Amino acid sequence: MPDNLAVPAEQIREMGRAALDLVAKYYETLGGRPVLQPTTSDALRAVIDEPAPAGPTPFPELLGTLRDVVDRYSRHNAHPRFFGYVSSPGNPVNTVGSMIAAALNINVTCWRSGPAAAEIELLTIRWFKELLGFPESAAGLLVSGGSMANFAGLAAARSAKFPNVVREGLRGATPRLYTSSEGHFSIRKAAAMLGIGTENVRTVRVDDNLRMDVADLARLVAEDRAAGHLPFCVVASAGTAGTGAIDPIGPIADFARSHDLWFHIDGAYGGIAAIAPSAREPFARLGEADSLSLDPHKWLYLPVGCGCILYRDPATARAAFSENADYTRVVGLENDEAFAFWDYGPELSRPFRALDLWLLLKSVGVTAISEAIEENIACARYLSDLVNASDDFEMLAPVDLSIFCFRYKNFDGDLNAFNERLMFTLQQSGSSYLSNTTVAGKFALRGCVLNYRTTRKDMERLLDDLRSVAALLR
Amino acid sequence: MPDNLAVPAEQIREMGRAALDLVAKYYETLGGRPVLQPTTSDALRAVIDEPAPAGPTPFPELLGTLRDVVDRYSRHNAHPRFFGYVSSPGNPVNTVGSMIAAALNINVTCWRSGPAAAEIELLTIRWFKELLGFPESAAGLLVSGGSMANFAGLAAARSAKFPNVVREGLRGATPRLYTSSEGHFSIRKAAAMLGIGTENVRTVRVDDNLRMDVADLARLVAEDRAAGHLPFCVVASAGTAGTGAIDPIGPIADFARSHDLWFHIDGAYGGIAAIAPSAREPFARLGEADSLSLDPHKWLYLPVGCGCILYRDPATARAAFSENADYTRVVGLENDEAFAFWDYGPELSRPFRALDLWLLLKSVGVTAISEAIEENIACARYLSDLVNASDDFEMLAPVDLSIFCFRYKNFDGDLNAFNERLMFTLQQSGSSYLSNTTVAGKFALRGCVLNYRTTRKDMERLLDDLRSVAALLR
Repeated sequence: MPDNLAVPAEQIREMGRAALDLVAKYYETLGGRPVLQPTTSDALRAVIDEPAPAGPTPFPELLGTLRDVVDRYSRHNAHPRFFGYVSSPGNPVNTVGSMIAAALNINVTCWRSGPAAAEIELLTIRWFKELLGFPESAAGLLVSGGSMANFAGLAAARSAKFPNVVREGLRGATPRLYTSSEGHFSIRKAAAMLGIGTENVRTVRVDDNLRMDVADLARLVAEDRAAGHLPFCVVASAGTAGTGAIDPIGPIADFARSHDLWFHIDGAYGGIAAIAPSAREPFARLGEADSLSLDPHKWLYLPVGCGCILYRDPATARAAFSENADYTRVVGLENDEAFAFWDYGPELSRPFRALDLWLLLKSVGVTAISEAIEENIACARYLSDLVNASDDFEMLAPVDLSIFCFRYKNFDGDLNAFNERLMFTLQQSGSSYLSNTTVAGKFALRGCVLNYRTTRKDMERLLDDLRSVAALLR
Repeated sequence: MPDNLAVPAEQIREMGRAALDLVAKYYETLGGRPVLQPTTSDALRAVIDEPAPAGPTPFPELLGTLRDVVDRYSRHNAHPRFFGYVSSPGNPVNTVGSMIAAALNINVTCWRSGPAAAEIELLTIRWFKELLGFPESAAGLLVSGGSMANFAGLAAARSAKFPNVVREGLRGATPRLYTSSEGHFSIRKAAAMLGIGTENVRTVRVDDNLRMDVADLARLVAEDRAAGHLPFCVVASAGTAGTGAIDPIGPIADFARSHDLWFHIDGAYGGIAAIAPSAREPFARLGEADSLSLDPHKWLYLPVGCGCILYRDPATARAAFSENADYTRVVGLENDEAFAFWDYGPELSRPFRALDLWLLLKSVGVTAISEAIEENIACARYLSDLVNASDDFEMLAPVDLSIFCFRYKNFDGDLNAFNERLMFTLQQSGSSYLSNTTVAGKFALRGCVLNYRTTRKDMERLLDDLRSVAALLR
């Protein structure tokens, strides 16, 4: 039993074997368990609540709590019929690799703080540039997720268009940025955090396919310019989180260039799908963005905690983030060895996020990822076909990527309220899990296929599960 | 060899055993290896650079690269004589636990997304409130590190004092905030990101002990008010990163309250030391802060990636961060089960950072952590005693916590240049590792004891190592 911090190696092996056994069993039993075991805050607190523990607890006892409480009362994002939100299943290679990352405990602030880790991160950024059509001269770094990636992209945009903002703050100007009504809420949140204000995020109308209407964008920009505001940035969604709609990247890129606007693409959900055949065409001009957000912890199947921001022009990122402090001054190192990630993003301390990325891409290869993404898209289309062929469901939005929005329709009464009850009861049932969105005022059952374990059979099972629940509720 | 994403359980066990063996050997050999193996960017790229890999690579080969490249060419923050920056060694229990976190892959956006994980995070926040004297009604959450924690605290301060800022942005106002000349550069960076501007961060003078001079703070605030600026926040350092100086918490708290300023404490380096006897007195009034940053991945010995922000009044955090989007609307859940972490911080997706925190505190207990912190402080004081008793070194700043700043003095010539060379050559030698800061214009060798493996013998060895290097350089 470890009662001190520096655990002897033999005990580390023992603890590791026990933890590995728990992990292997988790993966073995995953497909057969409920996605979710309903519980309450009170019930969980009754088991885990206690004052800060003064003394030690034996490791096997802690492992018991992890198994009987944490494992049991978690929503299993790796379950083949977990379709909620935009949520990666993680993967076994990264599970094993995370132990090595935690042991090495490299703080990837700059090259000097972890030469090999820094080089691996820079390598994975080069891979993204190569795969997504960004120029070699572009820069980028890994952040904790898509919200921070969007924040970083908009911070670079703000500095590029308001060169004194870092020093002087935002004074007097009313900078305006544009995203569609389907844009992710992290865009508004980033605008709030950056001192731009949510009322300066203009909402561009979408067309019937829920994609940004570029004519409406042009109208808003002209209106704002005429009113003396300062349009500076347009944000396109390369896969909205609501329905997976892909904004027209090319026309928005052209508009942004001709109107001197920073062009940010929020590709947190969908950007990586550019490597799959089905998404190649709509994403062909992804590389024209001034900044692009990606979430490897979404469609690259990495465990949560890994977002990415790419900047076309590295100098714009430095203008937004570079500060200096004497105790971090790099002494005796020049050029590549003086590289500091803190000049390119909001964080100073940074975990070795690139280990997961490198390990998975090396382990399975890009082709396998591309095939898995393509199959996810195929599963969503298959669901859409099943719905369209049915007489009890209807689709509410096109399937651009792997998100599907639909509803149950065989109910006389308030369909919104019925589908809301349907979703909640389905979630509690544990067999399949959907989340929700609103499409043209209608409550939509919303699913996202983002799991290499999900098959077409799971899509059939989802509809069967919904029918069973609907029969109970009607 | 895994050539697909869904690795079978037997292969997971096999990969896990091999990774565990690497990890156990890492800990076994740690004390005997160099802190750092010098290399260059070119040398590393020659080994790892390649286009994005199309196909799979066998796991043993990847493990070989991790061992021969990543492990070998990393700076070992867990080495007992790594004294650079403010850097935790990590610990074996969290190394093992990280594998479980990666397998469960819980995205702790809100209670619903991971009931048990959310409750464990809320529990660890209660522990911090209990240990540091915050009221039960306070709130908090884990973030990726100290820079983000300071950012979150200042965002709450900004919203508290400028209630329309989230909606309208910062218009016209020149908000002013105050921190000492020794304050961390993440404060200035946060001000830049928040649209406040670095020139609105006023630098308060420090006294001879490098602690904030409250009279100078009063002078600056009065001057700014007279000039029509809007003082809104003062940031105290509970342990500066440069020398470990502790600002006078009580007098600053009193001043902030009587002048209607938000009181933020940057306790990223030192805050957790409040649980150790030596730091109890200067930190007695830590609980009076409106917001407090902590870094469990520093003096709680957690692996990197875990910062923490506490807010005295939860409503101030919600005012800064709460947004809403339909697809994240919580359906059918109320009260505790509707809790969303995204209302309290900048991120949406969030890894299960609390697992490390809970696991370590449960595993060893608060008493063991407190004793380890106390011993770290004792080691720094011991080094100071050795320096003061020597005739070839001199201290350059008092030892308030576990940071020690000193220099070699037996050199006729430019002492700054000589000590800079001394530090760089020591780093390259691999036996001990120091970083640097500037104290009253003097280049200081700067070390921080933040490792439960470090003993007084290591402090003696550090001076011996420096003497050896100095003899070569003289």
